[in-house]
Amino acid sequence: MTFSQNDFDFVAEHARGAMLLQTVADTLEWDERTGMPIDGGDYRATQVSTLRGMVHRRRTDAKYGETLQSLSENLGDEDPAGDVAATVRGLLRNWKRDHRLPEDLVERTSRATVKGQQRWDAARRADDFGMFRDTLAEIIELKREAGQRIAEGTDRSPYEALLDEYEPDARVEPLNQVFQDLRKPLVELIDAIREAPRQPKRSLLERDFAIAGQRDLSRFVAESVGFDFQAGRLDETSHPFCTTLGPRDCRILTRYDLNWLPAGLLGTMHEAGHGMYEQGMRSDWFGLPPGSYCSLGIHESQSRLWENQVGRSRPFWQWLFARTQKTFAPTLDDVSLDDFHFAINQIQPSLIRVEADEATYNLHIIIRFDLEQLLIGGTLAVDDLPAAWDARYQSDLGVCAPSAANGVLQDVHWSAGLIGYFPTYTLGNLASAQLYDAAAAELGDLESMFAGGEFSPLLDWLRSRIHERGQCESGDSLILRATGKSLSADALIRYLNGKLRPLYGLDG
Amino acid sequence: MTFSQNDFDFVAEHARGAMLLQTVADTLEWDERTGMPIDGGDYRATQVSTLRGMVHRRRTDAKYGETLQSLSENLGDEDPAGDVAATVRGLLRNWKRDHRLPEDLVERTSRATVKGQQRWDAARRADDFGMFRDTLAEIIELKREAGQRIAEGTDRSPYEALLDEYEPDARVEPLNQVFQDLRKPLVELIDAIREAPRQPKRSLLERDFAIAGQRDLSRFVAESVGFDFQAGRLDETSHPFCTTLGPRDCRILTRYDLNWLPAGLLGTMHEAGHGMYEQGMRSDWFGLPPGSYCSLGIHESQSRLWENQVGRSRPFWQWLFARTQKTFAPTLDDVSLDDFHFAINQIQPSLIRVEADEATYNLHIIIRFDLEQLLIGGTLAVDDLPAAWDARYQSDLGVCAPSAANGVLQDVHWSAGLIGYFPTYTLGNLASAQLYDAAAAELGDLESMFAGGEFSPLLDWLRSRIHERGQCESGDSLILRATGKSLSADALIRYLNGKLRPLYGLDG
Repeated sequence: MTFSQNDFDFVAEHARGAMLLQTVADTLEWDERTGMPIDGGDYRATQVSTLRGMVHRRRTDAKYGETLQSLSENLGDEDPAGDVAATVRGLLRNWKRDHRLPEDLVERTSRATVKGQQRWDAARRADDFGMFRDTLAEIIELKREAGQRIAEGTDRSPYEALLDEYEPDARVEPLNQVFQDLRKPLVELIDAIREAPRQPKRSLLERDFAIAGQRDLSRFVAESVGFDFQAGRLDETSHPFCTTLGPRDCRILTRYDLNWLPAGLLGTMHEAGHGMYEQGMRSDWFGLPPGSYCSLGIHESQSRLWENQVGRSRPFWQWLFARTQKTFAPTLDDVSLDDFHFAINQIQPSLIRVEADEATYNLHIIIRFDLEQLLIGGTLAVDDLPAAWDARYQSDLGVCAPSAANGVLQDVHWSAGLIGYFPTYTLGNLASAQLYDAAAAELGDLESMFAGGEFSPLLDWLRSRIHERGQCESGDSLILRATGKSLSADALIRYLNGKLRPLYGLDG
Repeated sequence: MTFSQNDFDFVAEHARGAMLLQTVADTLEWDERTGMPIDGGDYRATQVSTLRGMVHRRRTDAKYGETLQSLSENLGDEDPAGDVAATVRGLLRNWKRDHRLPEDLVERTSRATVKGQQRWDAARRADDFGMFRDTLAEIIELKREAGQRIAEGTDRSPYEALLDEYEPDARVEPLNQVFQDLRKPLVELIDAIREAPRQPKRSLLERDFAIAGQRDLSRFVAESVGFDFQAGRLDETSHPFCTTLGPRDCRILTRYDLNWLPAGLLGTMHEAGHGMYEQGMRSDWFGLPPGSYCSLGIHESQSRLWENQVGRSRPFWQWLFARTQKTFAPTLDDVSLDDFHFAINQIQPSLIRVEADEATYNLHIIIRFDLEQLLIGGTLAVDDLPAAWDARYQSDLGVCAPSAANGVLQDVHWSAGLIGYFPTYTLGNLASAQLYDAAAAELGDLESMFAGGEFSPLLDWLRSRIHERGQCESGDSLILRATGKSLSADALIRYLNGKLRPLYGLDG
């Protein structure tokens, strides 16, 4: 048989139809998280689950799957990194995954995770892991079964099968290796910083920063780095995120804290990084793999790059500091650029992942990555999880949570069934540093550009190397092609040492 | 055959399913009109039309219609004003209407009205009726065909068949009668006012009213009169409206004008009136006739009652004026309550319906009601419409539009295929006055209540007499039962004379 254009058009149309309904549901969820009246929740849940059900039925349709299978076997001389091959490969991968999960398991998991998030929320408020224990055990069991079914007949472990949903083709061993490569020099750096001769003044960032000023400044920054407000908007919510509601409609959300300036401002840089990735994809492939993000690790590399490599750099603040002072005058009038820059680069082991700095953050991730493998593998019982958690925080970060709410109950992920998701955060950190190095090598003096408020050369570079490639290649392959090297810990370690040692008065 | 509960459950579930998708589409349109990024429009249009198509297929489903028909023939001793009978009657009425319109006609009308609104918008900007002429002629023809098909085999005229969509069971003759009853005393009053010894100072309301203050005050007013913000929200848009997205999620939208205070404040009262009607319906019947608004005339009676009978009354401003002065201080410091109250009750014939006062407004409506009957009846050609329009404005209101933009092109309705819609505005005005009289007769001194900021007795009265009745009775029957009289022009005439003659220094 030869490649059938008709068949291709059918599956593309079918997938685009599913995406249309998915973006409708996503719009409803965006609304729910930005300002839906509180009593609207019940009906909204019914609307969203009805739509998600319609999407799921479309995505698991038998004829659709058979056609994808047949297309996949008859790709002929299509370029494997081309749009057509990527479309067939990506859609078939998703279909197979969905197809291996019986409706019953999907439904039980959906129910368990809805309940899970409610129980988790209540348990966290009550500071009582016991309230969450049974639901978590049920979720772990369901995810283990899902992993086993997806992995069946392959050489993957059930955990790898779960990981694959967020980071296609990722394997545990190489991940473990790169995380260990990162861990040792990172701990050395953090230890050195703990005893460093100079320390930043965190309190500079804890003054009163009027929310109206934060809003103006955040919007200015998002617009300046290249987030397109004609095809997007910036709103506020309690748990920041980025969601794409159409080929030219990307919504980013942030959260302002009166007494912690980085939350809103660098939070906006982070979400704008996600948003610019979404806006940088090719609209004509919207809803299909060539116009979809490559992996969560790659997605996170974009947010981290703008938040950290750009947003915590000195040249960026050379550009923005005077405006920041003016926005909040006279709050920062007595503060120097150097002191401010040092403060936003404070490194300090702490209990809460989402509040962690860019160095210690990765230690939080490695703990979760290790523990969730043990949970899925069955070698760590849910009852033993809190103790294991606390022990790792003590040994890895040298901190101990006073209670479960600040410890094992801090993240929503597991309660939502997101297992295999955490490592993508650190993959993003690694990739952001490596991509930034490569961009700097090609583009020249990025620092002077930032100091002059010029960000488009960097964004353009990311567009052509990453955004416009969609899922035409794997994450590994994208990184290799864009940077000339496989992903490693080298760039991130070099970047952190290069920035932090001088700041803290440590010898290079 | 006896009444089948199974059949009833099937049609109710089917209708609720259609409503679920309709409210999803409505949510998308709310988003589009409140802040969707401008480039999101194309994809949004595809999403909405896909959802509307799904709703239409559900609503015209053959088995659903047959089941409704059979239920309708076997209602047995169900109370005709009860929930079950109302459900079957209302759903069957809608099904029959939809069913009589061939898919092809629906599609052509949909295309023509999408184009119609674009052409209308362009024609209005260019101030050139000629640009809109062909599309309007096409829309008139399509609506005439629809009216003919719906009216076929009944004793209704095609225009009445169109009117019936917005005002079930309304007939042209009684409407004409009540409009003529209104017209003569209204013109007498307006003429007297024109020559009255006292005139209000309109300019008091044209000062600078900071938008932030208008926002605060409007929210305060909406909340005070009884709009429930736990089940609703208030936003801003260019063309205010009210939309219901779920049984406990009603969104009202208003528009603030820096130099015209009534636009935002009384506009909010108007939309809050619509919103409180929606919020007052029984949630457990959401998506079914007992939990749906009775007719557009009844809907409008609620908005007008709160905007005019309440919001333009002196006791209301006794309550709110000091707060208004404080909100905009010192803008209104030199203004007395009496002068302010007189200003918001200015009566002055003008060109634009949406800016008209509560007396002359009805003359704008009668013109449209008469002209659209002639257009559908075929006795007025589209080419002759602008001249007919201008002649009526000259004779009825004594004003002449300098050009089409301020004349025949001012309203979006006809371009959107909304023919038979205009008279519901004046029906609302008539009903609001009659309902207010009846409430006052039962509740006693409403004026003292308003002066003390107490609105819940009036709202509760409207809830039990109107809101909770949904479509269990026709609009006529609701009014008769609530007020003890059939709808007439008496109450509105009495109300306008009673308020305006003293203000303008005319003898009672």
